[in-house]
Amino acid sequence: MLVLLTDFGLSGPYMGQVRAVLATHAPAVPVIDLFADLPAFQPRCAAYLLPAYCQKPFPAGTVFVCVVDPGVGTDRAPVMIHADGYWFVGPDNGLFSQVVRRARQVAAWRIDWVPETVSATFHGRDIFAPVAAALARGEHPGSGQPEMSDVTALDPASLDRADWPDDWLAVIYIDHYGNLITGLRASQMPEGAVISVQDQVVGQYATFGDVPEGDMLCYANSNGLMEIAVHGGAASTRLGVALQSPILCLELGE
Amino acid sequence: MLVLLTDFGLSGPYMGQVRAVLATHAPAVPVIDLFADLPAFQPRCAAYLLPAYCQKPFPAGTVFVCVVDPGVGTDRAPVMIHADGYWFVGPDNGLFSQVVRRARQVAAWRIDWVPETVSATFHGRDIFAPVAAALARGEHPGSGQPEMSDVTALDPASLDRADWPDDWLAVIYIDHYGNLITGLRASQMPEGAVISVQDQVVGQYATFGDVPEGDMLCYANSNGLMEIAVHGGAASTRLGVALQSPILCLELGE
Amino acid sequence: MLVLLTDFGLSGPYMGQVRAVLATHAPAVPVIDLFADLPAFQPRCAAYLLPAYCQKPFPAGTVFVCVVDPGVGTDRAPVMIHADGYWFVGPDNGLFSQVVRRARQVAAWRIDWVPETVSATFHGRDIFAPVAAALARGEHPGSGQPEMSDVTALDPASLDRADWPDDWLAVIYIDHYGNLITGLRASQMPEGAVISVQDQVVGQYATFGDVPEGDMLCYANSNGLMEIAVHGGAASTRLGVALQSPILCLELGE
Repeated sequence: MLVLLTDFGLSGPYMGQVRAVLATHAPAVPVIDLFADLPAFQPRCAAYLLPAYCQKPFPAGTVFVCVVDPGVGTDRAPVMIHADGYWFVGPDNGLFSQVVRRARQVAAWRIDWVPETVSATFHGRDIFAPVAAALARGEHPGSGQPEMSDVTALDPASLDRADWPDDWLAVIYIDHYGNLITGLRASQMPEGAVISVQDQVVGQYATFGDVPEGDMLCYANSNGLMEIAVHGGAASTRLGVALQSPILCLELGE
Repeated sequence: MLVLLTDFGLSGPYMGQVRAVLATHAPAVPVIDLFADLPAFQPRCAAYLLPAYCQKPFPAGTVFVCVVDPGVGTDRAPVMIHADGYWFVGPDNGLFSQVVRRARQVAAWRIDWVPETVSATFHGRDIFAPVAAALARGEHPGSGQPEMSDVTALDPASLDRADWPDDWLAVIYIDHYGNLITGLRASQMPEGAVISVQDQVVGQYATFGDVPEGDMLCYANSNGLMEIAVHGGAASTRLGVALQSPILCLELGE
Repeated sequence: MLVLLTDFGLSGPYMGQVRAVLATHAPAVPVIDLFADLPAFQPRCAAYLLPAYCQKPFPAGTVFVCVVDPGVGTDRAPVMIHADGYWFVGPDNGLFSQVVRRARQVAAWRIDWVPETVSATFHGRDIFAPVAAALARGEHPGSGQPEMSDVTALDPASLDRADWPDDWLAVIYIDHYGNLITGLRASQMPEGAVISVQDQVVGQYATFGDVPEGDMLCYANSNGLMEIAVHGGAASTRLGVALQSPILCLELGE
């Protein structure tokens, strides 16, 4: 399976052009759009989404093509990573820092392969898509295939960003409903704790229907991140928060 | 064929996660997104869209996965319905009331099956998608397959909402052009009648080009619902209407 | 391969209904959405996008279904065109004028075929999709198949718009990032020239990272059109430009 996570936008021709390359180079492999609207130009937000969304229900061997790439055409490296049975392909700008940090087994390569013609602004189509298609066809580093022979093993630790925390206490994605996904893993949220955002304290519940319509709640979302919502409304509008707005995790006194 | 009608939004990971489940459980079945932007939290609007859009050109046996589910995680029932040769899977909150009312042949089941791990907020992915995939694979109630053995026959009439009219004289969807789709079936619109919306009277024509650019018109849309548009413009902006705004159907005096 | 370029919008049921027809009539052919958001009602903008985006990486034989059709249901002709190995299907309203003008080899037919039931407002679904599916199945004019026997050869020159220039010095598309795609082919941009838009002069670079964050640049985009952007920002917001806003191409004095 090939899975796309990009900031290319739902509109415009970019997702379609990447799909055209994948359909040509790996016609038998299903392709799924997971995110076309990762926060534009903000690899740090995407970095904390990746470990949460690039997991079940995707089968082992899935190739995730991840592109938030404001430095396209400059000297940031194109990389491919094998982490806990999944493949990741994209630019080395911090995007993969959290995947690498949390993986139990990880290996990484710099992609030195360059196609005959390459644009200066669309490596998603010109480099990452053909390499991802090759991986999805089963051609792995060392297989001697063109794209795959032209890679250099990397120390995975070089992809981490030591100055980025394990959990980022910030809003990292705002969804269609106005729900606020945070960089705080639910497994790190103490029982009975609450979240504070924009000076509002938000209590923790299991699901929307546990509070009256119009009330705010926070909850472990279905991918294991803490999320803030209004039952039947839009938390983003209610709170006026932007991406990267900070949150606090408060344990109530006794 | 598997067809998705949801309020999950075009953006964000929800449609992709459902597609990942379907691709894993029913890899040979094509999947089509029909609506990803049903009015959020408003099953009543969707209820009147379903009979109009879940018909031709979809072939017999198509499985429609329908999710507008503000009560997810509470005690509203997950159901599956067989109506006039099509399957419908989703929450029982009125969403299927008009499909059931208009079907010539209908049978319904409550889904008692629960997967090993289930989130509190995303039954579209965790329950409805695997059940829909099973139906699309040809496993029907009574087939003894896991999901399909764990269903209970229902009286279809229990899914109807007696207090919702046959035709809903209201705006039930606003499309990308700003056209207003109403809950009034074209077959119920008397010849020569007009529609009144926000105190404006709108005449009935066959197509946009039948009125000068900038003029308003109403017409039987290509799925059999009455629709209001501005030729070359956006009726939603012109009229400032919101979803659920009432309309009137007026027969002109003689 | 079947490729969709329309102004139907990402939201709503239109793309899905077209896909349902294609999946029924040409189930083995992959379908790719290239644009669902061509400028609404503006075939002239789309006309200049087509030659740039309907080329590599799409393989020879690809069928492009192109629908920007404000005159649907009136007497504008439905046409199909074979140009340099690609097929194009859609309304004759100028949409194909630049494809025809630039093609080395071109042939065209008027589609006289009408299905048993046809709506007045959705020929994309009712006429263009079945004809495109027939082409994608390998049924060509003269093959004696129903849709394909019901076409009339046209003089391709009749599809050109002589009053539209070879390069249109205007903004023809605004993408998700706020980048401005223009109707000026990069091959026609003199070296060292600059673009002027809204009284601002914008210098030419290879990629975003060649200017400081927040600065404007223009560049040959990855499909060969000149494009205007802000590094890490949105040129559309910065300049307040709308579609069809004029640009100038200035060669600097010596």
